[in-house]
Amino acid sequence: MDNLTPYYRLLKSHHLFTGFSDKELQHLLAECHLKKLARDEWLFHQGDPAPAFYFVIDGSIKLFRTNRDGNEKIIEVINNHETFAEAIMFSGQHNYPVNAQALKASTLLAIACTRYIDCITRHPQQALALAARLSQRLHAKINEIETLSLKNATHRVVRFLINGITDNLSREPVVELEIPKRLVASRLSIQPETFSRILHHLADEKIIHIKGKLITILDLERLLHYE
Amino acid sequence: MDNLTPYYRLLKSHHLFTGFSDKELQHLLAECHLKKLARDEWLFHQGDPAPAFYFVIDGSIKLFRTNRDGNEKIIEVINNHETFAEAIMFSGQHNYPVNAQALKASTLLAIACTRYIDCITRHPQQALALAARLSQRLHAKINEIETLSLKNATHRVVRFLINGITDNLSREPVVELEIPKRLVASRLSIQPETFSRILHHLADEKIIHIKGKLITILDLERLLHYE
Repeated sequence: MDNLTPYYRLLKSHHLFTGFSDKELQHLLAECHLKKLARDEWLFHQGDPAPAFYFVIDGSIKLFRTNRDGNEKIIEVINNHETFAEAIMFSGQHNYPVNAQALKASTLLAIACTRYIDCITRHPQQALALAARLSQRLHAKINEIETLSLKNATHRVVRFLINGITDNLSREPVVELEIPKRLVASRLSIQPETFSRILHHLADEKIIHIKGKLITILDLERLLHYE
Repeated sequence: MDNLTPYYRLLKSHHLFTGFSDKELQHLLAECHLKKLARDEWLFHQGDPAPAFYFVIDGSIKLFRTNRDGNEKIIEVINNHETFAEAIMFSGQHNYPVNAQALKASTLLAIACTRYIDCITRHPQQALALAARLSQRLHAKINEIETLSLKNATHRVVRFLINGITDNLSREPVVELEIPKRLVASRLSIQPETFSRILHHLADEKIIHIKGKLITILDLERLLHYE
């Protein structure tokens, strides 16, 4: 065992280890070891036996497959304070299904699968607590995806409005929808409900006014800088 | 028990139930019941006892808290074929920490927590298989977030370039970076590494050419329609 004390707190703050008691975490660390990789160095090859999963202390690891034509298909890039290959351990697979290579100089903690599984299965409560943390994180990530998608969609709608402005010298600028909203949404690759929701939101904020096919821009300055 | 047979396959395809044998799923369904909500109808209030978690067969459920000023804070919106409150069950909490209300007419399956926990804890292998599925989904969602963020960032960089073009009548259009790249990235709310990565990607695709502070647009048409 290397001296892993400095990594104790780091590990404890990760969702896979939060539920561990101090004693259990010490027990687990006793069978961990540090792995240092140079840039471009391989960690394992597809099909290699999988006795450990990894926690990235510092660095960046590329997980990928190589197809018959020799082309790489990147599955995931794992960064600081993230783990990988733990799903393989949980599902009881004995071999890595991908290749792993360092994108830059990296330091990893290799955690023995048997020891981890041993800690988790000793008390059913431990396994449930793990499921709780995984579920919570999953819900948080789904939320984040929704926020990002909406931000993306809002950006597109705002750009569509700005590009569609017809100069109306005597009055406020307007955008005339020449095709049904449903088709506009489809052209912007967003759901019709999302398109309507964003338009209504902009109207609620008094940035635009909607009347049938005619959208009046009430506050062009705010529309131009809308996020 | 209502007649829940039609929901058998639907449930089986959800990650919380995939690992269940037919017999176990039947056993679980025997204690489930259907819940139909009208639009705006409440399912539960914050602090209510939590004997069940829910699978949304059809509809949309808003989870929210109300603060002291009476303002709503939406925590999450749960849609078709998603579950909610299972993290509460896993962590052994006995009360719902939020309010739940239907955003439109919805049909839910109420799943008894004790029965589900019973199925999961009977065999440690079952709990590990659940952890495997949750981990896999978590990695998939993290990937999705990275893709969306990059798409968002790419969109901003492309817009920044288009807006920054100086007409260069005799030759190709150019963009001159008047401030360091680091500051441009910060103004676009993206990481400097992401900004560089996107510029290099555009250069690799022969859409732009970078020389110091001067970016030449080689293919304006493709830049305008770049996603």
